[in-house]
Amino acid sequence: MSREKRKIDHIRHALSHSREQINHFDDIEIVHQSIPSLDWNELELNTEAGELLLSSPLFVNAMTGGGGEKTEEINRGLAEAAAETGIAMAVGSQMSALKNPEEKKSYQVVRKANPEGVVFANLGSEATLEHAQRAVEMLEADAMQIHLNTLQELIMPEGDRDFRSRLHNIEQIVSGLPVPVIVKEVGYGISMETASELKNIGVRYIDVAGRGGTNFSKVENKRREDPLVVFEDWGIPTPISIMEVRNRYPESHTFASGGVRNGIDGAKALILGAHMFGMAGGLLQVMVQRGKEAVVERINAIHHELKVAMMMLNARSPKELEGKAYVLTGKTKEWIEQRI
Amino acid sequence: MSREKRKIDHIRHALSHSREQINHFDDIEIVHQSIPSLDWNELELNTEAGELLLSSPLFVNAMTGGGGEKTEEINRGLAEAAAETGIAMAVGSQMSALKNPEEKKSYQVVRKANPEGVVFANLGSEATLEHAQRAVEMLEADAMQIHLNTLQELIMPEGDRDFRSRLHNIEQIVSGLPVPVIVKEVGYGISMETASELKNIGVRYIDVAGRGGTNFSKVENKRREDPLVVFEDWGIPTPISIMEVRNRYPESHTFASGGVRNGIDGAKALILGAHMFGMAGGLLQVMVQRGKEAVVERINAIHHELKVAMMMLNARSPKELEGKAYVLTGKTKEWIEQRI
Amino acid sequence: MSREKRKIDHIRHALSHSREQINHFDDIEIVHQSIPSLDWNELELNTEAGELLLSSPLFVNAMTGGGGEKTEEINRGLAEAAAETGIAMAVGSQMSALKNPEEKKSYQVVRKANPEGVVFANLGSEATLEHAQRAVEMLEADAMQIHLNTLQELIMPEGDRDFRSRLHNIEQIVSGLPVPVIVKEVGYGISMETASELKNIGVRYIDVAGRGGTNFSKVENKRREDPLVVFEDWGIPTPISIMEVRNRYPESHTFASGGVRNGIDGAKALILGAHMFGMAGGLLQVMVQRGKEAVVERINAIHHELKVAMMMLNARSPKELEGKAYVLTGKTKEWIEQRI
Amino acid sequence: MSREKRKIDHIRHALSHSREQINHFDDIEIVHQSIPSLDWNELELNTEAGELLLSSPLFVNAMTGGGGEKTEEINRGLAEAAAETGIAMAVGSQMSALKNPEEKKSYQVVRKANPEGVVFANLGSEATLEHAQRAVEMLEADAMQIHLNTLQELIMPEGDRDFRSRLHNIEQIVSGLPVPVIVKEVGYGISMETASELKNIGVRYIDVAGRGGTNFSKVENKRREDPLVVFEDWGIPTPISIMEVRNRYPESHTFASGGVRNGIDGAKALILGAHMFGMAGGLLQVMVQRGKEAVVERINAIHHELKVAMMMLNARSPKELEGKAYVLTGKTKEWIEQRI
Ligand SMILES: Cc1cc2nc3c(=O)[nH]c(=O)nc-3n(C[C@H](O)[C@H](O)[C@H](O)COP(=O)(O)O)c2cc1C
Ligand SMILES: Cc1cc2nc3c(=O)[nH]c(=O)nc-3n(C[C@H](O)[C@H](O)[C@H](O)COP(=O)(O)O)c2cc1C
Ligand SMILES: Cc1cc2nc3c(=O)[nH]c(=O)nc-3n(C[C@H](O)[C@H](O)[C@H](O)COP(=O)(O)O)c2cc1C
Ligand SMILES: Cc1cc2nc3c(=O)[nH]c(=O)nc-3n(C[C@H](O)[C@H](O)[C@H](O)COP(=O)(O)O)c2cc1C
Repeated sequence: MSREKRKIDHIRHALSHSREQINHFDDIEIVHQSIPSLDWNELELNTEAGELLLSSPLFVNAMTGGGGEKTEEINRGLAEAAAETGIAMAVGSQMSALKNPEEKKSYQVVRKANPEGVVFANLGSEATLEHAQRAVEMLEADAMQIHLNTLQELIMPEGDRDFRSRLHNIEQIVSGLPVPVIVKEVGYGISMETASELKNIGVRYIDVAGRGGTNFSKVENKRREDPLVVFEDWGIPTPISIMEVRNRYPESHTFASGGVRNGIDGAKALILGAHMFGMAGGLLQVMVQRGKEAVVERINAIHHELKVAMMMLNARSPKELEGKAYVLTGKTKEWIEQRI
Repeated sequence: MSREKRKIDHIRHALSHSREQINHFDDIEIVHQSIPSLDWNELELNTEAGELLLSSPLFVNAMTGGGGEKTEEINRGLAEAAAETGIAMAVGSQMSALKNPEEKKSYQVVRKANPEGVVFANLGSEATLEHAQRAVEMLEADAMQIHLNTLQELIMPEGDRDFRSRLHNIEQIVSGLPVPVIVKEVGYGISMETASELKNIGVRYIDVAGRGGTNFSKVENKRREDPLVVFEDWGIPTPISIMEVRNRYPESHTFASGGVRNGIDGAKALILGAHMFGMAGGLLQVMVQRGKEAVVERINAIHHELKVAMMMLNARSPKELEGKAYVLTGKTKEWIEQRI
Repeated sequence: MSREKRKIDHIRHALSHSREQINHFDDIEIVHQSIPSLDWNELELNTEAGELLLSSPLFVNAMTGGGGEKTEEINRGLAEAAAETGIAMAVGSQMSALKNPEEKKSYQVVRKANPEGVVFANLGSEATLEHAQRAVEMLEADAMQIHLNTLQELIMPEGDRDFRSRLHNIEQIVSGLPVPVIVKEVGYGISMETASELKNIGVRYIDVAGRGGTNFSKVENKRREDPLVVFEDWGIPTPISIMEVRNRYPESHTFASGGVRNGIDGAKALILGAHMFGMAGGLLQVMVQRGKEAVVERINAIHHELKVAMMMLNARSPKELEGKAYVLTGKTKEWIEQRI
Repeated sequence: MSREKRKIDHIRHALSHSREQINHFDDIEIVHQSIPSLDWNELELNTEAGELLLSSPLFVNAMTGGGGEKTEEINRGLAEAAAETGIAMAVGSQMSALKNPEEKKSYQVVRKANPEGVVFANLGSEATLEHAQRAVEMLEADAMQIHLNTLQELIMPEGDRDFRSRLHNIEQIVSGLPVPVIVKEVGYGISMETASELKNIGVRYIDVAGRGGTNFSKVENKRREDPLVVFEDWGIPTPISIMEVRNRYPESHTFASGGVRNGIDGAKALILGAHMFGMAGGLLQVMVQRGKEAVVERINAIHHELKVAMMMLNARSPKELEGKAYVLTGKTKEWIEQRI
């Protein structure tokens, strides 16, 4: 199967597997505070994550490119919505464009549609420093995402099987690239042990991309004759992963993604210490089913929900949400009691 | 939309959103005691809460007025029932009558129907001391309720957006009014952090008005085109809120409301340290659907249930219920383990 | 309504309210042991509880008498089954026979059918020492049960309302009667606080009769026009009550009843420290629906189940079950964590 | 009923009782790690358990033989699959062949089909040393399994009732046999107390065979007129049993079985400290319904799942899985909190 065909398949399957309505964010209860002291006009969404300066903590996470016109169209829509709402956006893995230059434009459309915006390049950890340099150049990217997706690879019949140089590759990229490098998962979460390893090689930006939203075991199993069904529950739920990473590596810049459904989930991620929160599958669905304008509306709604939560908790900025009172319930409480 | 129309809408929507059958009061188990030592005739419901002397710990919480004849009629019925059963009663926010004197009579009917009874005035925290003075006068009120309803305002399209002077307003009212000032929520509960803030400005009466009964996010969302659905689970459940307030500010006079369904819920509130317990939506429903006599019956039934519980636990008065043995289960236990 | 009619009603309603399939005994897991060391023939069910010597820890708990022929017939059947299987049996409250001598024979049939067996007399705590003496005489009873049933009384329209002399009455009976006095509940359980009170007045036998089986709130509510539905969940579940009593008053002789469904529930009660376990509603159902022979079979089956459990745990006698390893789950674990 | 008939019945009933989809392995969450460092070709399944050297930690657990041609056929299929995939295999209890030499060949087929493989003999704890010697000889067995199945015996109408010499028998066999002796349950688990007893008599190999898969109470109840239904929930769930044994007797060689459904369950068992994991009913079902080739496929799939998990957790061998990070939830967490 061609890489291009696979990209289209991913989108089709990501859309067809029904996203979970309930996830571990529901195990977190924000403690309501009754006495606000701010004016709505004072609230601002400006966000800093290390060297990145953003006008919102929300970003469109890595999804597509490399599947010809269809993926170009999706990327254009998402990028226009990102430009219009002022949020950052990542592209899908650019390896296909590195291998096949014809695919470049399905990625570059993102920069074209959003010349002033913040754009993240994306590659897997099989990439070399040189790959990464070319990927950043391709988009004049503001940062580079390196995704870790072992389980996805192992489920893919054509996936990688040799992972001996992953840590080395990342180390090279981190020390060699001029832009921030964000190491991310693809829906299985980052453990505190992994956070330690990343810290050791100098990674300063981590996107937990945990369990609870797009489920790549399910997506890839749809492409297998003998699905590895037993791996469909694998992974660390997103809010737990945030706490693991923040606990082990508090100096890192933490991005929360995986099953973020709305502005309250985003607020919870920020309360737990994340600096930004990303959405992938949920926005893709809106884009494909209802178009760019609907994506803009969805982003605006999430911004609105976030600001309502900020107002309630007396947080002038997303950053001020960190450490606001919350309570854990259910499995999330059980997990944290044992790990933190 | 006019303020009057809104008042009617509130009632309509409060009645249409199905009240929850199950709430966090169910997480509290009273420990049964087998050996009573009282005679039924010894039991009394007389209750003291600070300067307020009442013949029952139950009161009708703030609901209506300001919506013309319809709200006047409801207030008359509730007030007559309150008079007949000897319980206190609050009116809904009087701001509309302060702005439009024609609406005064829809509130004053409460005093007229119950000349000797205990009546609470009601305003939001946007009110000034002068507003509060006029509201008390209007009813010869025995106490003044100030409600905190940030989330409701934020969900209301026409709601307030500037909350900078709320704490200041309350402080002025508390120090300037000759009657007790009860600061209350409207269904989202009071946290221990809020209790501290209220303590600091001299508030001595707190009505937790927590989550579990009337859900103002749902009520207001019915009036929006783009409902903020994600806020429908927001808030601190009533029994938890009682424990937060009692723990942080034990000298306060605590009123429990929000999802009180019967005399056992009332007894649980008193066991946890509340001095009084209020009901709003549940009594409104009885009033609108079955009339004043049914409200009297309902109040009598609650008094009866409360007395049965008192008898079982050897409490001669509501006050003696405080501290009787109980056990927490479920989410309430999880919450309390983390917060208290 | 006559006392006789009420007795029949109780039976009818006790049978009609569907007994719970699941109760707190399911929260107790016996830890399986794999290496037995006994021979089946070595197992014996002989049981001692203070001065009472019994050939089984199982007994038929207090139910009926005083409702004319129908109750006489039921008592005869149960007594014959008890005689045939060698287990103890209690009669229902004898107050009606003390007031109306014609009803005596509906109780005395129990002694007649089982001349050598162990029979328990039964009265409420409104009884005086003289009442108790007459009740014991009536049956040549081996022990006297005094039941505490405040909630049942309060729900009964014609029930008692003055409980001032209860503790005094029991004290008189305990010190004046020549036979053991068992103080029992009727389905709401005994708390540790109540256990202390009973200890203080010299009671040495306690039957916890907890929540989980026959629900007297439901039974009595069927006889009310305005049922006190909110009291249908009231009470301490039986296994919890056993632990409360054993913990506070370990020298007492503890009888477990309320929702015992089979020999494993019985074994759990014994593991938790009870000396005997009783069944009421469950056996009544078998008796009324399928007759005496079926009751005998049911008792034999329970004895068999108990012996299988004893064999598994290497307990030669019921007494040796005490303290065998178990684990608590669910609400029972939550409760015990807070109370013990 | 003849022993032969019983063997066939067991198979029939084991297949007809629907295996549970959910069991306590679901209460264990492996903590995902994102950075693998191995190559797929480096992974190996070779396993050591004491003196046993195996090419996989998976084995076919004891099931059949002694029921004539039908059981011979099943054993042949399973043994061929074991030979082809290089895994160990146990036969069912050989007592019937010791009593009736005609039945020998239904067991010996296992050695015949797999001349170089690892084969376990099997007898109950009623066996003497001499029985065990003959059973090992019959198969040129590499190890001897002794099963403990008290509850099964007690439910079987024709089962044993005298268990006085069990511990003694095992001790004799352990000290007298030249091959390793594995003491196993049959689906009820080994407690820490039992582990202590086994340790005391010198047993070094324990197969926990816990609750969660084949349920022998259900199987045997299908053969009874008056099923002992209340024992169908009896037993220690497999993952809990592993933890009990490992905790009390860490020097033992622990085999995990009972409800292992796939390679992830196997990986969890190894993480908890087991050295091998066995499957019985699940493989029987595949064998009987879909034949030998399907069994080979199933075993290969489990090996594949196990290797994926190993890759994810950076474990080069099954042994390296021990101690990898995990989290307990639900009843398993509740249990472990009280016992370990
Ligand atoms: C169709 C699709 C394609 C994706 N492709 C990539 C990718 O190429 N690189 C990457 O790092 N993550 C990729 N992801 C993962 C997302 O960036 C994100 O980590 C994950 O979907 C969890 O977020 P969500 O629950 O909001 O979808 C993809 C997600 C989707 C839905
Ligand atoms: C129709 C309706 C109108 C209300 N209006 C007011 C109000 O004007 N002022 C106020 O303080 N609370 C108001 N409340 C809130 C109640 O006083 C109370 O805090 C809340 O409903 C929780 O109690 P419940 O669950 O018993 O209804 C209103 C409630 C209802 C149902
Ligand atoms: C029909 C019926 C009548 C009862 N009458 C009495 C009674 O007169 N005195 C008493 O002490 N308990 C009485 N009980 C309560 C039982 O003795 C027992 O405590 C209770 O039913 C809980 O046990 P169970 O769940 O096995 O039914 C009665 C129970 C039933 C079902
Ligand atoms: C049909 C059948 C027969 C069995 N016979 C035996 C036996 O003879 N000896 C023995 O030790 N275990 C026997 N077992 C128990 C298994 O070895 C194993 O301990 C138990 O089934 C739990 O594993 P499972 O859940 O994978 O089936 C038998 C199991 C089945 C399904």
